[in-house]
Amino acid sequence: MLIVMDRTATAEDVDRVVVIAEKRGYKAHPIPGAQRTAIGLTGNQGAIDPDAFENLPGVMEVVKVSHPYKLVSREFHPEDSIISVGGVPVGGSRICVIAGPCAVESKEQTVTIAKAVKELGADLLRGGAYKPRTSPYSFQGLGEEGLRILADAREATGLPVVTEVLDTASVELVAKWADCLQVGARNMQNFELLKRCGQTGKPVLLKRGMSATLEELLLAAEYVMAEGNQNVILCERGIRTFSDHTRNTLDLSIVPAVERLSHLPIIVDPSHGTGKRHKVMPLSRASIAVGADGIAVEVHHKPHEALSDGPQALTPPMFAELMAQIRPIAIAVGRTV
Amino acid sequence: MLIVMDRTATAEDVDRVVVIAEKRGYKAHPIPGAQRTAIGLTGNQGAIDPDAFENLPGVMEVVKVSHPYKLVSREFHPEDSIISVGGVPVGGSRICVIAGPCAVESKEQTVTIAKAVKELGADLLRGGAYKPRTSPYSFQGLGEEGLRILADAREATGLPVVTEVLDTASVELVAKWADCLQVGARNMQNFELLKRCGQTGKPVLLKRGMSATLEELLLAAEYVMAEGNQNVILCERGIRTFSDHTRNTLDLSIVPAVERLSHLPIIVDPSHGTGKRHKVMPLSRASIAVGADGIAVEVHHKPHEALSDGPQALTPPMFAELMAQIRPIAIAVGRTV
Amino acid sequence: MLIVMDRTATAEDVDRVVVIAEKRGYKAHPIPGAQRTAIGLTGNQGAIDPDAFENLPGVMEVVKVSHPYKLVSREFHPEDSIISVGGVPVGGSRICVIAGPCAVESKEQTVTIAKAVKELGADLLRGGAYKPRTSPYSFQGLGEEGLRILADAREATGLPVVTEVLDTASVELVAKWADCLQVGARNMQNFELLKRCGQTGKPVLLKRGMSATLEELLLAAEYVMAEGNQNVILCERGIRTFSDHTRNTLDLSIVPAVERLSHLPIIVDPSHGTGKRHKVMPLSRASIAVGADGIAVEVHHKPHEALSDGPQALTPPMFAELMAQIRPIAIAVGRTV
Amino acid sequence: MLIVMDRTATAEDVDRVVVIAEKRGYKAHPIPGAQRTAIGLTGNQGAIDPDAFENLPGVMEVVKVSHPYKLVSREFHPEDSIISVGGVPVGGSRICVIAGPCAVESKEQTVTIAKAVKELGADLLRGGAYKPRTSPYSFQGLGEEGLRILADAREATGLPVVTEVLDTASVELVAKWADCLQVGARNMQNFELLKRCGQTGKPVLLKRGMSATLEELLLAAEYVMAEGNQNVILCERGIRTFSDHTRNTLDLSIVPAVERLSHLPIIVDPSHGTGKRHKVMPLSRASIAVGADGIAVEVHHKPHEALSDGPQALTPPMFAELMAQIRPIAIAVGRTV
Repeated sequence: MLIVMDRTATAEDVDRVVVIAEKRGYKAHPIPGAQRTAIGLTGNQGAIDPDAFENLPGVMEVVKVSHPYKLVSREFHPEDSIISVGGVPVGGSRICVIAGPCAVESKEQTVTIAKAVKELGADLLRGGAYKPRTSPYSFQGLGEEGLRILADAREATGLPVVTEVLDTASVELVAKWADCLQVGARNMQNFELLKRCGQTGKPVLLKRGMSATLEELLLAAEYVMAEGNQNVILCERGIRTFSDHTRNTLDLSIVPAVERLSHLPIIVDPSHGTGKRHKVMPLSRASIAVGADGIAVEVHHKPHEALSDGPQALTPPMFAELMAQIRPIAIAVGRTV
Repeated sequence: MLIVMDRTATAEDVDRVVVIAEKRGYKAHPIPGAQRTAIGLTGNQGAIDPDAFENLPGVMEVVKVSHPYKLVSREFHPEDSIISVGGVPVGGSRICVIAGPCAVESKEQTVTIAKAVKELGADLLRGGAYKPRTSPYSFQGLGEEGLRILADAREATGLPVVTEVLDTASVELVAKWADCLQVGARNMQNFELLKRCGQTGKPVLLKRGMSATLEELLLAAEYVMAEGNQNVILCERGIRTFSDHTRNTLDLSIVPAVERLSHLPIIVDPSHGTGKRHKVMPLSRASIAVGADGIAVEVHHKPHEALSDGPQALTPPMFAELMAQIRPIAIAVGRTV
Repeated sequence: MLIVMDRTATAEDVDRVVVIAEKRGYKAHPIPGAQRTAIGLTGNQGAIDPDAFENLPGVMEVVKVSHPYKLVSREFHPEDSIISVGGVPVGGSRICVIAGPCAVESKEQTVTIAKAVKELGADLLRGGAYKPRTSPYSFQGLGEEGLRILADAREATGLPVVTEVLDTASVELVAKWADCLQVGARNMQNFELLKRCGQTGKPVLLKRGMSATLEELLLAAEYVMAEGNQNVILCERGIRTFSDHTRNTLDLSIVPAVERLSHLPIIVDPSHGTGKRHKVMPLSRASIAVGADGIAVEVHHKPHEALSDGPQALTPPMFAELMAQIRPIAIAVGRTV
Repeated sequence: MLIVMDRTATAEDVDRVVVIAEKRGYKAHPIPGAQRTAIGLTGNQGAIDPDAFENLPGVMEVVKVSHPYKLVSREFHPEDSIISVGGVPVGGSRICVIAGPCAVESKEQTVTIAKAVKELGADLLRGGAYKPRTSPYSFQGLGEEGLRILADAREATGLPVVTEVLDTASVELVAKWADCLQVGARNMQNFELLKRCGQTGKPVLLKRGMSATLEELLLAAEYVMAEGNQNVILCERGIRTFSDHTRNTLDLSIVPAVERLSHLPIIVDPSHGTGKRHKVMPLSRASIAVGADGIAVEVHHKPHEALSDGPQALTPPMFAELMAQIRPIAIAVGRTV
């Protein structure tokens, strides 16, 4: 942390900052300059609020310089982490493709789609038993019945299952049936949920919140890991901006940014990230090209009848085409699908 | 809903949309134009996904025209709602001032602050027993002990208590001790939490999410109200934008926008909305001037020692000054503090 | 500027940064810490790109700590500036009300509106002779004829005239006819235009760009002032965000932020800032309450016939009501209208 | 356009809208619904402000349904346009790589870099003679001397030259020396500049503004084309969002969006789009994978000494690596570099 003093700050102002900093366990290093003095603080353990100094007399600005996360950090864990989801590795040289319906609607629907995507090369099955919906009048998911259907689909295909957990009360139930717990964008800072997911030890697929910075995403992962659960997969799914030609703005530059700061794998969800079927294919290609460890896409055999998010779902033939398109891209970046 | 067809759409394309719309229970009204045909849909009950038509052949664009919320809507409830929080009315001609510490730290701290703000004219006491913190290493609140301290402070001052509820597991406990349940910005779309709060029947102070549109805020309130609980107070607390001179950008224009669309009261939180103490005063004045039904501000008798968000807290003398500043503004807009 | 080194940076990495910094005229102050070293740089004249060090080996982060503007800064000019526009002071204790049509459409229209707003208490007349329009097929303004009409309206009412200048080619012409040159949001970083406006010596009303930070706004003002023209008035007119209930999001917290950093006056344009007539009144009240030095509002006697932006224009009776509403707010903040 | 009436609107309210619409040359088609009436308007020529109806009694909402651009539109020109820049085609099956320094600093520097990038496979040379800089104290470019140096570099390498034009006064001069006029992000809505560039007939590389929607970008291109100049190349270079791990957020989904709506080619600038050298490579790969018609990247042989934007520039060996990385991606999407 760096405290920048006003041009008019007095020697007492500087001393006061030093004393307070030292009382808080920092070492203070004043740096006198031509126009003003700055004070570097070192030796801080854990995350201390940089704001504590901001309103002291003579202080112009307080600048944070070290990162408040540890377990997610590449500094503390230099090698890439590879997370096993029901035996399927996420991270490493192989691209992981997660596919399935937005919502589990029926056993027939889910098993049909699971078989189709398995056949076409998917690695994991996705599907929502609990659905977060903006309106209370929209379809909210089948709940526990949906979880059983996903387990049936796993049995029928061998695909491990990723499904969303919406609140602390159902974490245990979801963890019992699923191979990976998905925490959705709206819950990225539902800290109780993160802790509870951490306690299960199950892999957690953590989606970036719609207005979350990279640091907030990493700190949300830190919540899971601080419970002793190292199995976190990050997921970019679009942020909220003024740009209105897609539902969200897919921020692909976060992929190399995460790679630099963290050892955790990161995948991209171009279905929610764009909200438009005709953009899923090109953005899937771009996701692999930018270096993502996988993609999650929605597939439905009858998208016009889907109970939720139909227009962004691919049909199985479209998914086959997508697989065909990403394979050469994966090879071009030295990976395989 | 309006379906706008391509210039090149055929008569069959139009018929297909009409048939599908009618199968879904709409009435379809084709409007032929010079360059293209549009199809108006009416008669829809509840919220149907406008996207369902977007990928049909010949469709250029689908435009949503009616609002998916009902209970929150002024169309269905023309008069302003006044919500009683422990006997204190929120909404109506009197401005409601909610004040107190960011976090409950000790009985001594909370009762001291409660007495000070009561003395200076506050209507409700705020204070967090459960704190949502971006970092797992930050102070997370005293929990149930904090709730008891808030009840003590209420007993000492007569001020009803507003406090945040973080997850479904603690809703009942918080509802037992508090007069009003606050749902924080990060939880605005934690739908299970909204439902559970709705079921308690207690007033709910619902803060706008950092990336929530007006419609999403109203739909979140609809979740609470759909459980039979009409006691919702909305709260603007700043949105996330590129603008970096404040922590968030306080969007005061939402106040007249809510007033137009909804009967619910809306207050403003200029402490979180700006994150800077020296902006709390001017933005409080602006909040009253724009027509808000109240403000929520953080007050701490020793802000430099506060365990969370100290730099945005006012001292009691600053709070006295704030009350002095907003009184004439309230009178100017025909209200009282 | 502060250079933060990696935990793994070597002594040579630190030395390299020091050498390069000193070659560039800085003084370098290494601050060794428990986990890493940071290097403070002082003595920089003018604005040097902080990025120059970012890719050196061992460097983790580069943090900018001093501000790149000087002439606009309150540090260098502690007293509030008051700018005279044709004899009317902007800044100081009196609130300045700028009113008039969005576009000059005819002499009859402009003089009618000018007389009406003068009668009702406006201080300056606004009106566009050159109009920046998103579409090439929209009305683009009357050009020089519009400038003459504005001069006629000034003669008829005594109101000094503020009008927009769109490009360098017409700066001289506009400066000849107008009392104050307005630089629009889309041109806030049209640096040639800023310089040319600076050279005229005329007061410049500088509108914040739709995606401009506070620092960029101040640097744009610095462009004008660096030409020797101290007469700059800043104007907040809404920024672009995801929030869709208004055309732009009026960022009123910039008013106290500017007041803290700069001596220049700042006004607010709630007409463009909201794009909705029914929001102009409440946001005008809020602008005065937050501490703005004035407002600029659009008034049209026949808004349904206006050639541009009719729906946000007030009629003269609405403007009378607005004046009545802001007067007590101005008094409440110790000012007069 | 669709006018949606209030539930409480009377028959007169509806009639009034119809009458006003017809006076303005629309055909009005009322659509009575169960809860409210909507009125479709057709037959509009050119761009009429949809807001004209918004404040009429009984009107709840006005919804725009047709696009205000024509010449840029794929509806009116179904085939992809291929723009020739000094004989080099932009658009079509070949990927166009534009490379060169951010700013022209000297003949030696520019010719050295031009030869290097030519050797490594670049198609066009970029380099700024006029530089838009946020601060008036930053290096502003060599001006006309820079243009001559670019011409020298063209002569030495055969690479056609793309360079920025900053204001109307220098359009002719830049057009005399350069093969393609670049309009920068800050000038995307400098409409006089767009018109003047249109009049030269030279190809125009139009960069998306930092807060520009897709529609605004297309309308800016329409300004150029309305002057009779069909040679427009669009360029995505990042938008301004809250996301702070890159300087801007590269919005790659605009590439397929443009492809759907317009016949114009679109390229991506990952150097400005990310502001970080280590992100240029992955985002270049992603740009080609998503379907862009080319990329523009900054190359400098001594980036630590560059007078502007050094940290985002690639060295020639890095550029060689970039070319090697994008080649297989281009092949994977059926194109060549």
